[in-house]
Amino acid sequence: MTSPHSDSTSHSVNIDLGDRSYGIVIGTDLLGDAASYAALPRATSAVIVTNPTVAGLYGDRLTQALKAHYLSVHTVVLPDGESYKNWESLNLIFDALLGHQCDRNTVLFALGGGVIGDMTGFAAASYMRGVPFVQVPTTLLAQVDSSVGGKTAINHPMGKNMIGAFYQPQRVLCDLDVLKTLPERELSAGLAEIIKYGPIADVAFMEWLEANLDALLARDPVALAFAVRRSCEIKAWVVGQDERESGVRAILNFGHTFGHAIEAGMGYGAWLHGEAVGCGMVMAARLSAALGLVDQAFVERLAQLVQRARLPLVAPVLDEQDNVGRYLALMRVDKKAEGGAIKFVLIDPIGRASVRSAPDALVADVINASCHG
Amino acid sequence: MTSPHSDSTSHSVNIDLGDRSYGIVIGTDLLGDAASYAALPRATSAVIVTNPTVAGLYGDRLTQALKAHYLSVHTVVLPDGESYKNWESLNLIFDALLGHQCDRNTVLFALGGGVIGDMTGFAAASYMRGVPFVQVPTTLLAQVDSSVGGKTAINHPMGKNMIGAFYQPQRVLCDLDVLKTLPERELSAGLAEIIKYGPIADVAFMEWLEANLDALLARDPVALAFAVRRSCEIKAWVVGQDERESGVRAILNFGHTFGHAIEAGMGYGAWLHGEAVGCGMVMAARLSAALGLVDQAFVERLAQLVQRARLPLVAPVLDEQDNVGRYLALMRVDKKAEGGAIKFVLIDPIGRASVRSAPDALVADVINASCHG
Repeated sequence: MTSPHSDSTSHSVNIDLGDRSYGIVIGTDLLGDAASYAALPRATSAVIVTNPTVAGLYGDRLTQALKAHYLSVHTVVLPDGESYKNWESLNLIFDALLGHQCDRNTVLFALGGGVIGDMTGFAAASYMRGVPFVQVPTTLLAQVDSSVGGKTAINHPMGKNMIGAFYQPQRVLCDLDVLKTLPERELSAGLAEIIKYGPIADVAFMEWLEANLDALLARDPVALAFAVRRSCEIKAWVVGQDERESGVRAILNFGHTFGHAIEAGMGYGAWLHGEAVGCGMVMAARLSAALGLVDQAFVERLAQLVQRARLPLVAPVLDEQDNVGRYLALMRVDKKAEGGAIKFVLIDPIGRASVRSAPDALVADVINASCHG
Repeated sequence: MTSPHSDSTSHSVNIDLGDRSYGIVIGTDLLGDAASYAALPRATSAVIVTNPTVAGLYGDRLTQALKAHYLSVHTVVLPDGESYKNWESLNLIFDALLGHQCDRNTVLFALGGGVIGDMTGFAAASYMRGVPFVQVPTTLLAQVDSSVGGKTAINHPMGKNMIGAFYQPQRVLCDLDVLKTLPERELSAGLAEIIKYGPIADVAFMEWLEANLDALLARDPVALAFAVRRSCEIKAWVVGQDERESGVRAILNFGHTFGHAIEAGMGYGAWLHGEAVGCGMVMAARLSAALGLVDQAFVERLAQLVQRARLPLVAPVLDEQDNVGRYLALMRVDKKAEGGAIKFVLIDPIGRASVRSAPDALVADVINASCHG
C-alpha cells in the first residue's frame, strides 16, 4: 500500500483491461480544467446526462469546458433518484440523442451519482450499439465504486440492475471539490463502499479507516483523496482479473446480497444503496461468524466502523408476517443466486472474501438478529 | 470458392472471433436432432423466444429437443412483425425471465426470423448484463444474414436498430427444412441478402446466382444449402475482420442506406427488410454508376437478378411534396451518416465495395430515376 501520509490530493489509477483500459483521474478542480478533457476520443458532439440538482451545481462548468473540445454540447436532465433508474428515463437519453441527430461520433458524459452513471453507461453501450462515454461522478459512492469497472444497468420492477451491460468508460474524472456540496447522508453512503474494501482485500486499509474516519466525515481533502484512490486501486485490481464477473469480481458484492433485499423490499430509493450495503455488510459479517469463518470481535469491529460512518445498523422488517421468508425470496431472485442457491460474499479470513451459500437456518438467525438491533 | 456442384446439404461455417468464436451449422432436420444441442454451454434453464406463427410450426419440436438438455424449458411468444421490434416486446422477454426466476445459468433460443433474432440477442446481451443465446433462424434472410455476426437491436420510433449491442450467439442452427413453410414473399426477401454478397465480395457467386436463381426459387435443397453456406462464409470473413463495424463490415450494408430510408419512410413493416434492401441495392448500383465506378451494364445485370428474385425495382415515393428531401433526411439520421454526411456502400469494381459519400445532386438523380420505374 502506498503511504497514507502523502499530502497530495492528486492521484491517478489505471484500469488495465487490454484495449478497454482507461484511467481514473482523482484531484481538485478537475471539472473546470480543460486538461481533464484532453486525449479523449475525437467526436463531433458531447451529450451531458445529469439530474436537476447536479445540473444546477455543475452543469454550466462542464458545458463550458466541453465546448472547447466539441462542436456541439447538449444536456439531458433526468429525474433524480433510484426510483427513476428505469426504461422511461433511459429512453429520455435516446430521445435526446436522436432528436439532436447524434451519430456514433458522440461522447456521453455522466455527470452525477450512481444512478446517472449506470443509466448513461447503459445508454452509451446501447445507442447505435455503442458510443464512448466518460464518468464524472459527483457522489463519493460513485467515485469509489459505481463509476469504475463498467457495470451499467437499469432496474426492472422485479429486480435491481437486471437489465444492463458490461461497458467500460473512456475515463473517470473524480473531482474532490464536488464532494463539498454532498449531503451528509450521501457522504455516509459513500463511506459504506469505502469500508467494504478493507474486509475483502486490505486489512491495513481497514486500520487506516479506523484511524481516519473522523477526517473523512469532516471532508478533509487529503483523507478523501487517499480513500478514493485506495478504493479505486482495489477495485481496479479486482476488475482487472475478472471484468465480466464470472469469478473473483463477485467479492465486490460484499454486503450487497442482504443490501439488495433491503433496497428491493423497502422500495427502491427508500434506503440509499450505500445505507443498505452498510447494514448488509454487518449482516454478511454475522453470517461469516455464524459459519466460524471470522470471530465475533471482527463483527463488532466492522459494526463500529459502520456506525461511526452514520450508517444504519438495524435491518428493516420487510414483512410483519414472514420477514425471513421475504428476505430469502428477495435474495433468491438476486442475480447472484445461481441455480437457486443464494450466494453470499463472506469474509474468510479478514482481508479476504469468498462466495458461498449458507444453510437457510443460519441465514434466518442472522436476519432475526439484525432486524432487532 | 468451394465447388458449387457438391450434392451435400450439410455444411458448417466457423465465425472466428477469438473467445467469441462460434459455429454455424447448416443442414436438414437439425431442429429435432438432439446432436444439434450438444456441446452448448451448460445451463439449468432454456427460454425459447418466438412468434405465434413459428411457435405453431416448430415450437413443440424445439421444446422437446431441449428438454433432453435443460431442467426447465419455457417459451415466450412475441407479437409478429417489424413494427413490434420495440422496447415493449423486449420487456416481455425480461418479464418472462424474471417471472421464471431465471438466473445467469439460462440460455435463450431465438426461434424465428430477423426480428426475433435481433430482439432475443439484445435481451440476452442485457439480461443480468449478459446470458448466452443460440440462433435458430427460420427465415432465409435470418439464415444468411441477421442471425450471423452478433448485431442485435430494437427499433426506436425515430430510427431503425438504434438501440442494441454487438453480442455474439453461441451457435447458429440453420435448418433448411424450415424454409419449406416460408411464404414466397419472405423467400424473395432472403434472396435479396444473398444477392448482396456477389457484388460486394465474390463475382463468381454472382454468376452462380444468375445460373441458379430458378433452383433457389423452387427451394431446391442443394442449391439453398450452397447459397446459405456461401453467404455465411462471406459474412464470416467480413465480420472476422471487423466485429464492431468500425471499418470494412460496413460493406455488408450495401443497399441498406437507401433501404432503411424506404423502410422508415413507409413505416416499419410495410416493406419487408429484404424488399427494401433489394430495391436499395439497385439504387446504390445506380449511384456507383453515376460516380463512374461501375458501368451501366452492371446496374442492368443486378436489376435483372433482383427482379428475377421477385423483389421490387421501383422505389416508393415517400413524400409527394419533397420526395428527395424526405429520402435525404431519413438517410441522414441513419447511423451510417457519420458527422452529417450520408455514407453509401458503393461497388468499385464489381466484387469489391467501399464506403463513401456522394454529392446530393447525384443522389437526387438516383432517387428520381428509381421512384419512376
